[in-house]
Amino acid sequence: MLYEDVLETVKKNNLIEENDKIVVALSGGPDSVCLLHVLYRMSKEMNLKVYAAHLNHQIRGLDAYVDSLYVMRICEKLDIPCFIRAIDVPKFCDENKMGLEDGARMLRYDIFEEIRNRVGADKVAIGHNQNDQAETVLMRIMRGTGLQGLRGIEYKRDKNIIRPILDISREEIEKYCEEYELEPRIDSTNLEAIYSRNKIRLKLLPYMEEEFNDNIIESIVRMSNNIKVDSDYINSQVEIAFEEASKSYEDGVYIFTDILKNMHKAIQSRIVIEAIKKVMGNVNSIDKKHIRDVLKLISDDKKSKKINLPKGLFAYRFNDYILISKKKIDFENIEFTYNLALNEDIYIDEIDKTFKSKVIAADEFDIDHMKEGYQYIDLGKIKGKLTLRNKRQGDKIRLQGGTKKIKELFIGMKIPREDRSLVPLIVDESMVVSVCGYRINADYKIDDNTEKILEFTLE
Amino acid sequence: MLYEDVLETVKKNNLIEENDKIVVALSGGPDSVCLLHVLYRMSKEMNLKVYAAHLNHQIRGLDAYVDSLYVMRICEKLDIPCFIRAIDVPKFCDENKMGLEDGARMLRYDIFEEIRNRVGADKVAIGHNQNDQAETVLMRIMRGTGLQGLRGIEYKRDKNIIRPILDISREEIEKYCEEYELEPRIDSTNLEAIYSRNKIRLKLLPYMEEEFNDNIIESIVRMSNNIKVDSDYINSQVEIAFEEASKSYEDGVYIFTDILKNMHKAIQSRIVIEAIKKVMGNVNSIDKKHIRDVLKLISDDKKSKKINLPKGLFAYRFNDYILISKKKIDFENIEFTYNLALNEDIYIDEIDKTFKSKVIAADEFDIDHMKEGYQYIDLGKIKGKLTLRNKRQGDKIRLQGGTKKIKELFIGMKIPREDRSLVPLIVDESMVVSVCGYRINADYKIDDNTEKILEFTLE
Repeated sequence: MLYEDVLETVKKNNLIEENDKIVVALSGGPDSVCLLHVLYRMSKEMNLKVYAAHLNHQIRGLDAYVDSLYVMRICEKLDIPCFIRAIDVPKFCDENKMGLEDGARMLRYDIFEEIRNRVGADKVAIGHNQNDQAETVLMRIMRGTGLQGLRGIEYKRDKNIIRPILDISREEIEKYCEEYELEPRIDSTNLEAIYSRNKIRLKLLPYMEEEFNDNIIESIVRMSNNIKVDSDYINSQVEIAFEEASKSYEDGVYIFTDILKNMHKAIQSRIVIEAIKKVMGNVNSIDKKHIRDVLKLISDDKKSKKINLPKGLFAYRFNDYILISKKKIDFENIEFTYNLALNEDIYIDEIDKTFKSKVIAADEFDIDHMKEGYQYIDLGKIKGKLTLRNKRQGDKIRLQGGTKKIKELFIGMKIPREDRSLVPLIVDESMVVSVCGYRINADYKIDDNTEKILEFTLE
Repeated sequence: MLYEDVLETVKKNNLIEENDKIVVALSGGPDSVCLLHVLYRMSKEMNLKVYAAHLNHQIRGLDAYVDSLYVMRICEKLDIPCFIRAIDVPKFCDENKMGLEDGARMLRYDIFEEIRNRVGADKVAIGHNQNDQAETVLMRIMRGTGLQGLRGIEYKRDKNIIRPILDISREEIEKYCEEYELEPRIDSTNLEAIYSRNKIRLKLLPYMEEEFNDNIIESIVRMSNNIKVDSDYINSQVEIAFEEASKSYEDGVYIFTDILKNMHKAIQSRIVIEAIKKVMGNVNSIDKKHIRDVLKLISDDKKSKKINLPKGLFAYRFNDYILISKKKIDFENIEFTYNLALNEDIYIDEIDKTFKSKVIAADEFDIDHMKEGYQYIDLGKIKGKLTLRNKRQGDKIRLQGGTKKIKELFIGMKIPREDRSLVPLIVDESMVVSVCGYRINADYKIDDNTEKILEFTLE
């Protein structure tokens, strides 16, 4: 029965193909020993090549050596090549300032991967079982999780980690070991979060079983498997949506706000996560709040805004997109200068805006029809060449109240320091003619003698 | 703080609008009393009209009367119209063979709805809190659930049930009641699943809090709220997909297999659920296995198949669609008869197939190019009028081995009884000319003297 159930799991989740070479992570405990034996049987049917890899972690001195001995013996009996590595895990953890559990897990996976490479194997098989799954899901629920976390342990990870006995209960595994007289080492449970896990295993789950549901393990695992289907669906939709809403360049991932804002909240947050993953390789130091902050940029009217994310990552809001990037863009130090050619659109790359101007003859101009969002100057009053640029040290403008430093004007208008470099000024060879979108120099205003008018706006 | 938090919940979930009339379900316990008081304060700000509805359930004799008295007094103090109904709930449950918890819940909601209608109110407000939410989610996890169940209690249900204090913890509610000296009746908790719930409340959650997470309630509720967003997204996609893949008629819902089969598993199962909901009004007696069985019909090669679902519901597999219907279709009792007009397509509604025929002159016919899936007869050998129909009692055909009853032919060909009425026969005025798709009467075969040939097929 167990063998057939594992076969079904393997088939359903596409874990093993004919002729695969598989390294079994063998601690010597019932799970990994059962897994080894099942794969040993399967190897004949599917022409597999099976290896075993064992880490002598030197944590429980003599016990660990007996584990290694046991592992060697059972591999010999089944004629399976066995690789044993002895590492002083406590010392390693100490030196690398890691907890014993984290360190041991990291080392184990490293060693399995190393051995997999050495023997040229396709996959590493790990002996997680159904109870581990229920415990993991329950632990995550208690610590706080979402859809992704409720998936629990995966049947397959990173293409080469597989878990063929994930649908098998601990009880079935122990019965199997007895039936085949495998005599596993009972103490050799893995070290992962052993204390919390033992509480879940020995106290919490039995209590739930007693008081609420005889099949608590199966119920939790079934839930997790249902969630996997839903989560897979959402992930597939996110993939499509990410493709549609973003573009990746060397300097980061651009997410287009017009597309993003029409997507469902469930998709929006995941697109931001995908973008961060693409830039950073992972989202380890990112939490819900960061994602929320980035998403707030969508509806933020204040463009050219910067958000600091952990580990030197930034999210910038430009006109049409959010940029997720490691590049530090200092909006205060932007400098730009464009020749102002009349009647021509000038796209200002640095602030992602377009300056549009039009020359109008005074007799065709009706002062009552000045358009909202547009500004008007008397072209006849211009001295020399016109330039479009952002502020420079010492810039001045003449207003009705007298001449004023641009810097003071910005302070008076309460424009935040980081936004001041983003305001284009029109200057001629003598002075600032206009602070685009805000003010016109009093000396350049239209009057009764005006012949030609420059109408302009920023889009 | 509590008041502001409730306002935020109300706003975020669109629970209450200005000028709403709201009936508060008032047991007299802290939750409902706090809710009453908050809505009382809100009524001034938002011009609400607030009513109270109380059920004296007569379960705990005198206690229940003291509850009612308390409810009357607090409503009087706040000048809120109060409706009290006394019903002998234990007697009602006894008479209707319901459990006390289920019966009391049903009666309560019935009475709230009745009072809402009587006063012409828009909504009924229920005092579920954050702890109730965590308990509900945990209970569902333990009993086995999926995405829908993990949503927990909804802020809003059926448009007129609202839960404004769902984000507030029990502790905050008790503090609020103290602060405003509301002196709620502590025993008057609602009756819903009180025994299991008490175990979760008094044993399980405190243990989890102690051993795993100080903020276990918030963690579980946050998970549930995250899941709600994901679940909302999936539901919105299902709505679109259902529209695309199905059509509802009086006799049931038709789901088109060509469209359905290309959809994600997460969507497929929900489309079947939607179809059943549409036909039955609910999916109360449907479980996972039924959905799986219906979905198996997609890949089932055997068309015209029937599945029995609970409560007189059926799922039928026809050529291009699955029909979810209460109508009993007995494939064995189908009868159809069509005049066989040559060179014309005949659509056979009963089996959703099209009979196509073409007359070919013998000298234009090449026996080596007879097409797969087509049959050929000698038109010159036909006696009288041609008819296309399914089998009748006593039908016979002449084969090489001799004359055979159609019934025996079907048995010999192992065509299941329920499929036999679905096979069209060509008959002339003397005999069965062809069992379409299977056999040709030996007397009608093409030979050297044939002048005109009828080529035909079923599509």
